[in-house]
Amino acid sequence: MFVSEKQIEIRYAETDQMGVVYHANYLVWMEIGRTQLVNDIGFNYAGLEEQGYISPVLDLSIQYKKAMRYGQVATVRTWVESHSKLKTIYGYEILHEDGSVAATATSLHTLVKKDSFRPYPLSKVDPEWDTKYLEIAKVNN
Amino acid sequence: MFVSEKQIEIRYAETDQMGVVYHANYLVWMEIGRTQLVNDIGFNYAGLEEQGYISPVLDLSIQYKKAMRYGQVATVRTWVESHSKLKTIYGYEILHEDGSVAATATSLHTLVKKDSFRPYPLSKVDPEWDTKYLEIAKVNN
Amino acid sequence: MFVSEKQIEIRYAETDQMGVVYHANYLVWMEIGRTQLVNDIGFNYAGLEEQGYISPVLDLSIQYKKAMRYGQVATVRTWVESHSKLKTIYGYEILHEDGSVAATATSLHTLVKKDSFRPYPLSKVDPEWDTKYLEIAKVNN
Amino acid sequence: MFVSEKQIEIRYAETDQMGVVYHANYLVWMEIGRTQLVNDIGFNYAGLEEQGYISPVLDLSIQYKKAMRYGQVATVRTWVESHSKLKTIYGYEILHEDGSVAATATSLHTLVKKDSFRPYPLSKVDPEWDTKYLEIAKVNN
Repeated sequence: MFVSEKQIEIRYAETDQMGVVYHANYLVWMEIGRTQLVNDIGFNYAGLEEQGYISPVLDLSIQYKKAMRYGQVATVRTWVESHSKLKTIYGYEILHEDGSVAATATSLHTLVKKDSFRPYPLSKVDPEWDTKYLEIAKVNN
Repeated sequence: MFVSEKQIEIRYAETDQMGVVYHANYLVWMEIGRTQLVNDIGFNYAGLEEQGYISPVLDLSIQYKKAMRYGQVATVRTWVESHSKLKTIYGYEILHEDGSVAATATSLHTLVKKDSFRPYPLSKVDPEWDTKYLEIAKVNN
Repeated sequence: MFVSEKQIEIRYAETDQMGVVYHANYLVWMEIGRTQLVNDIGFNYAGLEEQGYISPVLDLSIQYKKAMRYGQVATVRTWVESHSKLKTIYGYEILHEDGSVAATATSLHTLVKKDSFRPYPLSKVDPEWDTKYLEIAKVNN
Repeated sequence: MFVSEKQIEIRYAETDQMGVVYHANYLVWMEIGRTQLVNDIGFNYAGLEEQGYISPVLDLSIQYKKAMRYGQVATVRTWVESHSKLKTIYGYEILHEDGSVAATATSLHTLVKKDSFRPYPLSKVDPEWDTKYLEIAKVNN
């Protein structure tokens, strides 16, 4: 199983009046984690989108364990939990600098054509990418 | 079961380059839905926070069904799914103008002291609010 | 001179750890103010964009006077400061509930074709809208 | 004159349906630029805030020249334009990867006590920091 790691310098704009990172911003970090994973294995999400495909979130679940604060650096660990013809599930761990867990999460995605939002298998758009995902997936389908 | 409704005029800033509302913004709308629910039954979240209590999200799950776009008005339906001594689960439906479902979600919250993040029962801070939540909860604990 | 008014219920997500509204969010409110102004005089920005035109900000200036907080309602007052063939300047006042000024601002926009970002006069796309802007502009060009 | 440089990997969440970075996000980048400048000269904004001081924006002006897109890396160049007892003006250039200018900006800040929002001279809180700012300021007051 391949796990990608990305450091996030926490932005002042990401805090709220609780004095911690506003919870919706973790979803933005999860997306940065996915982008990093894709880059780490040699592919490019921006390029996919230029070809007319996007990969929206269909389902997302997140468990908040320990709040993060401005001035800290978050580490987002991202992996492919499972990958099948039309569905990819990513897994995430967001860590504090001392290695303690700030949050865990999963998100389910499908690939769709940008103009129609119709599902389209990654294996047809980019067979190498599809093969790589099958190879690194934690759970084989 | 009491269901609160709140209209959200979709902001340009909430869209992304897919041409639809960025998925993390639904969490902001869910929070607006909770605030509305609290107001609708005669209480006030800002006031609770002034007394030194906050209600962070511990767990959140969302299913994206049908993307929303700028120029539309979203309706957020919010209810108390369940309420116990230290845990409140809210349920949500986010609707298009034609009544079709854009997303469904749940979020789990606890009340904590702002300075220590230690859990504290709502029944001790505001017994009337606690009683009201037990009364309107969909599922009784 | 026509001045449009729009109420904004301040969102928890808009605060930062200073305990006040994060300063960049005022720009989002300014945009909501512009949208309201356009609606109030009977036109529609979303429609313009569907025709292939967008109106990006070229220059923006804002003076922050008195911070706003969660639980308050902001009022955004928006007007057309000046309007010429290729440039429209909007003026703004953002007010507290007691009428005191939270911020003042101006923004300069041009209309461009969405695909090329090339400037295009509003008078050619929608002559009525152009005439209305000339009529309500505070300063005549 | 000292100029700090910070690379910003553009986030998908920062785009809007124009297909470019939403204009308010440049203000977030400007803040990241200020933080970097402060770090580069050996000081720490988070530490200042822990001591009970914050540095809100009083006035901000930005000129948008050439839109930025997802997949690009922005460079934020930040310097101290001027510094006096109660006012600090920062200057900014935001650059595309080819060195062309995406935006230029300035922002005016004062230091205030967090609890009262009363102005307080940096020279009293941290004389070394104050001296450094006077030394690197582009325009001497």
